[in-house]
Amino acid sequence: MNHRLEKLAGWLKHEQMELAMIQDPANLFYLTGFECEPHERLIALFAFPGEEPFMILPKMEMDRLKDSGWTYGITAYEDTDNPWATISSLLDDRKLLPFQSAAVEPDHLSYARAQSLLRLSPEAKLISASPQLEAMRAVKDETEIRSAKKAARFADMAVETGIEALKPGCTELEVVARIEYEMKRQGIREMSFSTMVLFGEKSGDPHGIPGTRRLQEGDLVLFDLGVIVEGYASDITRTVAFGSISEEANRIYETVRKAQEAALAQCRPQTPMMEVDRAARRVIGEAGYGAHFPHRVGHGLGISTHEYPSLHGNNSDLLSEGMIITVEPGIYVPGIGGVRIEDDLVITAEGHQVLTRFPKELQIVE
Amino acid sequence: MNHRLEKLAGWLKHEQMELAMIQDPANLFYLTGFECEPHERLIALFAFPGEEPFMILPKMEMDRLKDSGWTYGITAYEDTDNPWATISSLLDDRKLLPFQSAAVEPDHLSYARAQSLLRLSPEAKLISASPQLEAMRAVKDETEIRSAKKAARFADMAVETGIEALKPGCTELEVVARIEYEMKRQGIREMSFSTMVLFGEKSGDPHGIPGTRRLQEGDLVLFDLGVIVEGYASDITRTVAFGSISEEANRIYETVRKAQEAALAQCRPQTPMMEVDRAARRVIGEAGYGAHFPHRVGHGLGISTHEYPSLHGNNSDLLSEGMIITVEPGIYVPGIGGVRIEDDLVITAEGHQVLTRFPKELQIVE
Repeated sequence: MNHRLEKLAGWLKHEQMELAMIQDPANLFYLTGFECEPHERLIALFAFPGEEPFMILPKMEMDRLKDSGWTYGITAYEDTDNPWATISSLLDDRKLLPFQSAAVEPDHLSYARAQSLLRLSPEAKLISASPQLEAMRAVKDETEIRSAKKAARFADMAVETGIEALKPGCTELEVVARIEYEMKRQGIREMSFSTMVLFGEKSGDPHGIPGTRRLQEGDLVLFDLGVIVEGYASDITRTVAFGSISEEANRIYETVRKAQEAALAQCRPQTPMMEVDRAARRVIGEAGYGAHFPHRVGHGLGISTHEYPSLHGNNSDLLSEGMIITVEPGIYVPGIGGVRIEDDLVITAEGHQVLTRFPKELQIVE
Repeated sequence: MNHRLEKLAGWLKHEQMELAMIQDPANLFYLTGFECEPHERLIALFAFPGEEPFMILPKMEMDRLKDSGWTYGITAYEDTDNPWATISSLLDDRKLLPFQSAAVEPDHLSYARAQSLLRLSPEAKLISASPQLEAMRAVKDETEIRSAKKAARFADMAVETGIEALKPGCTELEVVARIEYEMKRQGIREMSFSTMVLFGEKSGDPHGIPGTRRLQEGDLVLFDLGVIVEGYASDITRTVAFGSISEEANRIYETVRKAQEAALAQCRPQTPMMEVDRAARRVIGEAGYGAHFPHRVGHGLGISTHEYPSLHGNNSDLLSEGMIITVEPGIYVPGIGGVRIEDDLVITAEGHQVLTRFPKELQIVE
């Protein structure tokens, strides 16, 4: 077994659990290297403390699983089969029915599937494997950090491409199109999430959606985007000025920049995560914009764009070496617009290394 | 209340359930018109048999909810709040704690959230609202059909764009990039799913992933793609020949074309869905390719790309007027490649109307 599967098996043994059912695609990729988009079909890894794991998946995915290097058991089903009957008999073969406790992913396991699993063993306890898997995934190894660095390079390039595409009268969606086109031409298959390009007052919505708003002189332009490289996501935000912006917009920009610097200054091993959030919030609050920073300062980044840890103001968990996180304070003022500055960084023994490199001094695009 | 919310409330009353918690973004959009991407944050609609619904969501989404026209209760929380404490007090205000039964979406509700809901009322039964919501969503009204038709027009255009981009030596991802770029330039914000363009032997994997395989004379080229228009998805597959293809590839193409025709011929109100699958499977089986058609013949299409109904060989549910479905048989032969032909169609009183119109005679691209 690979090192990660062994670690999972060791944890099951230590916790005296008889099995784990893992079906979040991000965890599957982490544990097995197999990349999948199951949609509504079940693709699951069953792992055990003392024996080899197996995977169950739709027949049409079987060849890709084999190609990914999986060497343990594979059970394939057709759309007309009931995979739970197969799971039942496979667990029965291993004398595991009924089981006392199974590890699952409570946030990624549907209630329907939990019920199906419990029908195999109605008295069983379902226990969360997530803290264990999150802790494993949060600390990246060298190979993962290398992939994240590549993903950050492409994110920088994507922001550059977006800035080059800014012309008076162009729409947000045209800029999104240009960015994603260039990324695909570079061999990037997937963005981390829907690319966000927002102009002017639209940047004032932290979850705004790009549309046909046309670019005007004096607009703030907010880019929030990322790409997946070798399975790892990047996530960058930069805000630039299209021509000359108002004094207040300038003040907002500088406040966010200082807030982000203050937050970054907290990023080193053993710092409680809330200190990162609080450092940014203090700067923004002192500038009088406290009510306009409605989200946490950052999140873990890896196979998923949002993963453990969550860097919010009540989280006393400690940063540790090898974590990759985002730091992304923002201020959003209705009618004026929003500014957010986001970097990806890896926590190092000495402090941190910022992976995204696009400049943070206000860029005025002419 | 709008007609759909009223219908849900009526159903709750009829089933004697005290509340429904709805949090699948597709169901939320259907019931409220509010479009959201909640990621890991809770966005939920609480509906009741006898009183007004309310929505709970992160504070930063609140303005967008109001803009969407929602006129009932809104409760917003911050990242540092526990939304379940708020839900508890809102239900308590309505004298609904403890409740006897609540309607939920078992396939879209996480086990963790089901547990949170049950903590409010440990003896309660959670009952599936999905058959009711699926049945409501499966039959489209005129406005929905109009949006699906627009989405189909853009899907046709996307296939044309992809074919124009085929040049010897180009990669699959370059063609994907060109398609998505053109769609975004047309104002399309979102594809229905990751655009699939597969060359040669790679088309032999029904869930293949576009990469840097380069186009060669004699390749089959498979396009599977769709776009979202006004919240509604299209989903088209076409397979074309790049130059002259082998005799067997030709035979496979003609078999799939006949299978798709045979399946379409079954599509009218009151036909059991399995007959659609079986009609295609019969043609493919008789041609000796039965083992190479590893998936169901089609699926419902609407706000989600895959929704109720599932057109597989054991489904005896009946087609009915207003349903929008895909019909997409395929044959995949390792080493040679794959052919799939997929249309979107709406079931009409008289039979059906095909929405996707790109030609199905084998197109030989020079």
